[in-house]
Amino acid sequence: MCTAISLCGKKHFFGRNLDFEHSFGEKILITPRNFPLVFRHTDSVHSHYAMIGMGIVSDGYPLYFDATNEKGLSMAGLLFSGYAHYHKLNPEYTNLAPFEVILWVLSQCANTEEAKELLGKISVTNTHFSHEYPNTPLHWIISDKKSSIVLESLREGIKIYDNPTHVLTNSPPFEMQIFNLNNYMPLSPFPPENKFGGNLNLITYSRGMGALGLPGDFSSASRFVRAAFFRANCKNEKNEAALLFDMLKNLSPLPGCVITEDGKVEVTIYSSCVDTEKGIYYYTTYGENKVSSVSMYEHDLTSDTLATFSYNLLH
Amino acid sequence: MCTAISLCGKKHFFGRNLDFEHSFGEKILITPRNFPLVFRHTDSVHSHYAMIGMGIVSDGYPLYFDATNEKGLSMAGLLFSGYAHYHKLNPEYTNLAPFEVILWVLSQCANTEEAKELLGKISVTNTHFSHEYPNTPLHWIISDKKSSIVLESLREGIKIYDNPTHVLTNSPPFEMQIFNLNNYMPLSPFPPENKFGGNLNLITYSRGMGALGLPGDFSSASRFVRAAFFRANCKNEKNEAALLFDMLKNLSPLPGCVITEDGKVEVTIYSSCVDTEKGIYYYTTYGENKVSSVSMYEHDLTSDTLATFSYNLLH
Amino acid sequence: MCTAISLCGKKHFFGRNLDFEHSFGEKILITPRNFPLVFRHTDSVHSHYAMIGMGIVSDGYPLYFDATNEKGLSMAGLLFSGYAHYHKLNPEYTNLAPFEVILWVLSQCANTEEAKELLGKISVTNTHFSHEYPNTPLHWIISDKKSSIVLESLREGIKIYDNPTHVLTNSPPFEMQIFNLNNYMPLSPFPPENKFGGNLNLITYSRGMGALGLPGDFSSASRFVRAAFFRANCKNEKNEAALLFDMLKNLSPLPGCVITEDGKVEVTIYSSCVDTEKGIYYYTTYGENKVSSVSMYEHDLTSDTLATFSYNLLH
Amino acid sequence: MCTAISLCGKKHFFGRNLDFEHSFGEKILITPRNFPLVFRHTDSVHSHYAMIGMGIVSDGYPLYFDATNEKGLSMAGLLFSGYAHYHKLNPEYTNLAPFEVILWVLSQCANTEEAKELLGKISVTNTHFSHEYPNTPLHWIISDKKSSIVLESLREGIKIYDNPTHVLTNSPPFEMQIFNLNNYMPLSPFPPENKFGGNLNLITYSRGMGALGLPGDFSSASRFVRAAFFRANCKNEKNEAALLFDMLKNLSPLPGCVITEDGKVEVTIYSSCVDTEKGIYYYTTYGENKVSSVSMYEHDLTSDTLATFSYNLLH
Repeated sequence: MCTAISLCGKKHFFGRNLDFEHSFGEKILITPRNFPLVFRHTDSVHSHYAMIGMGIVSDGYPLYFDATNEKGLSMAGLLFSGYAHYHKLNPEYTNLAPFEVILWVLSQCANTEEAKELLGKISVTNTHFSHEYPNTPLHWIISDKKSSIVLESLREGIKIYDNPTHVLTNSPPFEMQIFNLNNYMPLSPFPPENKFGGNLNLITYSRGMGALGLPGDFSSASRFVRAAFFRANCKNEKNEAALLFDMLKNLSPLPGCVITEDGKVEVTIYSSCVDTEKGIYYYTTYGENKVSSVSMYEHDLTSDTLATFSYNLLH
Repeated sequence: MCTAISLCGKKHFFGRNLDFEHSFGEKILITPRNFPLVFRHTDSVHSHYAMIGMGIVSDGYPLYFDATNEKGLSMAGLLFSGYAHYHKLNPEYTNLAPFEVILWVLSQCANTEEAKELLGKISVTNTHFSHEYPNTPLHWIISDKKSSIVLESLREGIKIYDNPTHVLTNSPPFEMQIFNLNNYMPLSPFPPENKFGGNLNLITYSRGMGALGLPGDFSSASRFVRAAFFRANCKNEKNEAALLFDMLKNLSPLPGCVITEDGKVEVTIYSSCVDTEKGIYYYTTYGENKVSSVSMYEHDLTSDTLATFSYNLLH
Repeated sequence: MCTAISLCGKKHFFGRNLDFEHSFGEKILITPRNFPLVFRHTDSVHSHYAMIGMGIVSDGYPLYFDATNEKGLSMAGLLFSGYAHYHKLNPEYTNLAPFEVILWVLSQCANTEEAKELLGKISVTNTHFSHEYPNTPLHWIISDKKSSIVLESLREGIKIYDNPTHVLTNSPPFEMQIFNLNNYMPLSPFPPENKFGGNLNLITYSRGMGALGLPGDFSSASRFVRAAFFRANCKNEKNEAALLFDMLKNLSPLPGCVITEDGKVEVTIYSSCVDTEKGIYYYTTYGENKVSSVSMYEHDLTSDTLATFSYNLLH
Repeated sequence: MCTAISLCGKKHFFGRNLDFEHSFGEKILITPRNFPLVFRHTDSVHSHYAMIGMGIVSDGYPLYFDATNEKGLSMAGLLFSGYAHYHKLNPEYTNLAPFEVILWVLSQCANTEEAKELLGKISVTNTHFSHEYPNTPLHWIISDKKSSIVLESLREGIKIYDNPTHVLTNSPPFEMQIFNLNNYMPLSPFPPENKFGGNLNLITYSRGMGALGLPGDFSSASRFVRAAFFRANCKNEKNEAALLFDMLKNLSPLPGCVITEDGKVEVTIYSSCVDTEKGIYYYTTYGENKVSSVSMYEHDLTSDTLATFSYNLLH
């Protein structure tokens, strides 16, 4: 399971947790402007925005879990089990395989407005990358420094939502996650008011009681509420990157708190926090709280070759 | 398990649910003024306030579950498992067996002030009524038309509390039940305010959302919160007795919703609602929602003989 | 706001609360087989199943809030603010005004299977009954003695759902209400198990703790969960009608617990419980807990004239 | 507000968050064996166990917030507003000022057994350190590598509790915090079971749903439940210190999520994690997630001089 947050303060930071029971061998990947992007059902793109993100390379192809392009537009795919529906080829649309969606958007769009327009023309198809890699059910958050949107491919087709919370987790669909927030409307960082009636002399026995009711478990609906509450209330003007990492840390399943059906322990494999203006990908990994980083602009972005940075090289 | 509520409106009504897996063969009992009250460890009382209530008669002795005297002072014993502690005889106090406490108070006190003073001098002893009837762990609510108090006999001794909620259920001790209300401080009958932060446009999709968080199960802590919330907010000036019955109905475990450790079904054996001024004991029983009643003043209160009214005679 | 429950035990009882801040002057209405049913956009029906239910008569037209036909098929309309969407006339469908839907279904269908087929062909149109009566946003539950379905007219069109909970309240849409039940999966009438970890010696200090987490407020989502839990767990084989009334009573907003935006008090105007086989409409009204009834078969069902029974005549 | 956790795995780590709206200028303090410990109402101790911890030095006196001695016994004081009661001098007891309690225990005791015996003889007096420093209301957790106890000075006197949770936060008293855990008994890291009844086909739409109901806010009662759940379920055998820091991080109020009555922002000033065997005090501070450390054994423990290590020197 995963959590993504776009933090729009003085600067813009985009981050996510990838929570799973094992690593995928993912690396930091820089795709420079002239790396040819081949798509299964539509024309290749030979010149495009460069991007940096986390993912794996298979057969020379960058499969991003999340990425940010040189315009600062950022995108992350998050598990969407039980709801993601990938369709048959439809000649009325640009047909994209799920693993192509991040590349398609970040190679061409400078902001969420452009992404919205582009995504209005696509269909996400049930095209597998290979026999080894069946499609993962995903939905996506796309953020620039001002706004966020969500892309879901449901049975009834593509859905694009404005996302005023700037956060995304997993199932259920975004519409339900957003609706669920209504139930938490009165939560606040401030001390609660006594409205119980009967003139009972109730006391605020602890700080923080204004947020009583905030869910603390690591299910996707609870993480959505908590992430939205943090995103809406937290401030650290001196260190916004640290704040984003702190939020992600709270939303990260502690080892042993989430056990899968087959007895495995889910943990946060990595947490990322991208300085979208500077193109620096900061990250921590399970077992290593120290922040590492890779900077896009230290690489030759006019190149036509992928650059990869594995964890081992970095710490 | 049980719930008691004292409703102080234009008139004073005192009521309770007795929730259990079976009836005890309880009846409405009227104890007239000259019925001799014998106590195990203190002097008998031959002339006293008359009272009406529900209970059983054993060896000619009235064992009240709840009762109201001719001054309107009302009292109910409620199960208090795991916390009630009955003590050894202590010559410094008036020693009372648990089954004598209601008689001791209602025979002598006209209001909660008098009851508080009297109870400051007692110790509740572990004296059994008989071999057949071991002592039930109990605590008590005592109410007049203005105020309510709670009596608990804990390991550390007698505790007497003012009870501004005017309700009582079961374990844990009253102090914890009252403390727990602090967690429900912001609940209200009014629509909730959006304090979530982030300028999210959250909606009130239903009436009643201001009380989101009110517990709906039938455990004693949840019933205490719900009873206190109802008591603090409900009004029905035209029919206060009906309102009290309605509250008790909401707090009554629906058959099948509370199963005991040994697989039995707990239900509300009876619900009572006493017009404390008129001395009328209204009640419903499991399987009979129609309200029946017995009036104290239709009986000769100068008598020295108990009057009993069984359910069968009444409906 | 409203709650409807279909109870399928030895017999079939269908009931509902109508919760509002005032009565509509509703009456029990019997529509006999030959009362001509006129529809705005489709042909009149002159011979049909008879039905009994609660509603108002305007210009000689029966506007049912809920009803049961002589085959036992039952249907109730419940407020569905913010989601009900009534459409323009569509020649591909049978166009029905919202106030015609109950008549259309109950006049023709003997069970939910037939209703599902019929409803697959309709569109609900934004046709007003009159200038005085704008359309109420509604959705509907339809139940026979075995199964229940839900009908919603959303922006994207007619939705028909199987309803294994056999209950319905108000907004949000049924799909969300059903999804929300997943969050209450572990609730049970049985004592809870200690799974907290760490070998902590936690105690079950009260009966009923297995259902801790059940919401107790009167918002539509909380009532849906509570109604579904009661429907799934409650049993009273001796008196199923009483059980249904008891459930509805728990779900009925106590006066003062739900205050509207403009300061009005929502209460349960009436609660109904129909013996669908015998065609007897049992009901209680606000301020009158005593059950009244009207029997369809005591009326001449071959008549062509509406029969109405006002509250005043009945108690 | 604060959170303390004792983690007993292969090794023993003891840690705490100190949450407040500002720093106190606290430093890491090493008190060597021959630093004379002067007590207000009892004899001075000139030779004792050495200890390391966090606190401030005033007039040459070490005022520890938390500390660990060379036997590995660890102790932390946590805010206990509204309940801590400091008494008059009582000649039957060893009278200790609140700020002397940690020194008294850690200077003499090697484990919790010894601490329990010692604490049975004390009374905590309302002796102020100075005019500038009024007493802070505190309670204490004391842990060795096997067990934890809690010390509270209440109105009715000293209370010493075994603490099988190995965690402590703030008010209410420990007995209530522990009791409250009963309400969370069924929570688990494993997927939930469907016990809802009615054979409803409910789904586990997310991992982590077995802990639904775990509170996520930063009030003291919610932190207690969350800390106890984490302590009871989390494991990271490869890096137990990291696990303890991760738990503390989750329990640390994010900046902006807890606002005080006078509008200040509560944050975690520092988090500590002591390797109690090696006498190494690891810590992070607000704004500095990188772990720093001070080792007791790198200092001359036979000295008679306090050693202090300020934050600035360390990073």
